Amino acid sequence: MTELYGSIEAGGTKFVLAVGDEQLNVLKRIQIPTETPEKTLAATLSFFQENPVTALSIGSFGPIDINPESPTYGSITTTPKAGWGNINLLEILKKELSIPMAFTTDVNASAYGEMVKTGQKSLIYFTIGTGIGGGAVQNGQFIGGFSHAEMGHQYVKHHPKDLDFAGVCPYHGDCIEGLAAGPSLEARTGIRGENLPADSEIWDIQAFYIAQLAVNSTLAFAPEKIVFGGGVMAQEHMMERVRKQFSQLLAGYVQLSCDLQDYLVRPAVLENGSATLGNFALAANLLKRKY
Amino acid sequence: MTELYGSIEAGGTKFVLAVGDEQLNVLKRIQIPTETPEKTLAATLSFFQENPVTALSIGSFGPIDINPESPTYGSITTTPKAGWGNINLLEILKKELSIPMAFTTDVNASAYGEMVKTGQKSLIYFTIGTGIGGGAVQNGQFIGGFSHAEMGHQYVKHHPKDLDFAGVCPYHGDCIEGLAAGPSLEARTGIRGENLPADSEIWDIQAFYIAQLAVNSTLAFAPEKIVFGGGVMAQEHMMERVRKQFSQLLAGYVQLSCDLQDYLVRPAVLENGSATLGNFALAANLLKRKY
Repeated sequence: MTELYGSIEAGGTKFVLAVGDEQLNVLKRIQIPTETPEKTLAATLSFFQENPVTALSIGSFGPIDINPESPTYGSITTTPKAGWGNINLLEILKKELSIPMAFTTDVNASAYGEMVKTGQKSLIYFTIGTGIGGGAVQNGQFIGGFSHAEMGHQYVKHHPKDLDFAGVCPYHGDCIEGLAAGPSLEARTGIRGENLPADSEIWDIQAFYIAQLAVNSTLAFAPEKIVFGGGVMAQEHMMERVRKQFSQLLAGYVQLSCDLQDYLVRPAVLENGSATLGNFALAANLLKRKY
Repeated sequence: MTELYGSIEAGGTKFVLAVGDEQLNVLKRIQIPTETPEKTLAATLSFFQENPVTALSIGSFGPIDINPESPTYGSITTTPKAGWGNINLLEILKKELSIPMAFTTDVNASAYGEMVKTGQKSLIYFTIGTGIGGGAVQNGQFIGGFSHAEMGHQYVKHHPKDLDFAGVCPYHGDCIEGLAAGPSLEARTGIRGENLPADSEIWDIQAFYIAQLAVNSTLAFAPEKIVFGGGVMAQEHMMERVRKQFSQLLAGYVQLSCDLQDYLVRPAVLENGSATLGNFALAANLLKRKY
């Protein structure tokens, strides 16, 4: 019997729903806005009722409960997004769709998709946008223990020209998300990031923080590749700034297993499709495939 | 047939050699000083010729080459320790001892020993002493990809009272090792750490950095436990300082799976025996045991 795989990429502003075939090709893919849970999940269910799949995987914004032993397994937990706290995505979907379902973070799903696409054994995926998040895989396993990673909230050192900036993370102030995610740009300059000129020195400050995230992750995980998704890093000048500062900060302490250009990279899956591909593979794994 | 397991904990100042039984109990354990590779490895070989074992494991100071596909697999690579650079420990030992041997970092061996002792599925072991190092296990696998972790060289933010201290790491200046390992204390105060009074505010500064290492590792790995070995953390006032600052810095962002007192802990294996136990277990695994 031919199998079809479903992907739900549940984001804070939109849900991306997709159906893939056994070769993990996208057969259909739509976006719907993230409104109330009732509305958005009803639309999600309709999509998969009209487009039945054999198994599906959900990659969700978080924090989420990924512990299968927990009574709230499948939930978004403490999100500041109104209406979505303590919503059990998995339970709601399972009530209506009697198929195997996987549940992980959006960045884990993206990391998995990049792993499948590139064939790397160990890989980290970061998204740098309104927030900063990261997911890592090693030998097919997600990195995580009592819960999933929350890599965007790590502490790093301040840029010499940014010593007094307190950061904008409501929890930590000057963690990486507080210092380098989109809203930090506007907090410093009064100008939204997309309106800042490409030669503004603010980009070097932001790149300094993102480079430290890459250095710390290199030292913690020694991954074969670090992939940067999200709007900020879609600007090629940013990738180059991050690579340059990464080299200076790592200071030759460890030898990478490939060229820097191939180590700090944009996603190999095009059109923001990393999570979709990752979800297809995770859904296929539920049916004893091995991606 | 009864099996015996060997452990070599190869440190920069001493080698600890041990023999264990099938229950991983220590039957014999000696220390020898780390002198020239010729002298120390000859003494190591003598020990295991007099005390034959079925398999052994080496946990070494580093950086080391742990990639079995590499031509220099088994080597200490770029250590500043005179005479020990590019010494292939594994090759030298294998020439004389025809038994299965495992090879990893000293901190990985310690992490493994703590995992075996405590039964945790995911755990990080840090040593805070002359240097700072860390090893992590998750579901029986070491964290690492193209090489092993080098967690002690990550960047963190400066303490408000320590903004101008440049750090003493020869590679990075103000990475964690440069800011918080033993030599940083003397560099700041002119007084060796062991002679500083317990009420010196320098300990809070050091604890601030170690707490950030714990916060960043919590966010990157979500481990079930973080274990602190090494001389600095043997002082109970330090564990308490680190716990207090960890709580403030994490700011309730993730919920630990246990009490803080049980999360940030001293080694469960007494008398600096974590690496020895870990090596016994890793040696046993070579013979198809499953620790």
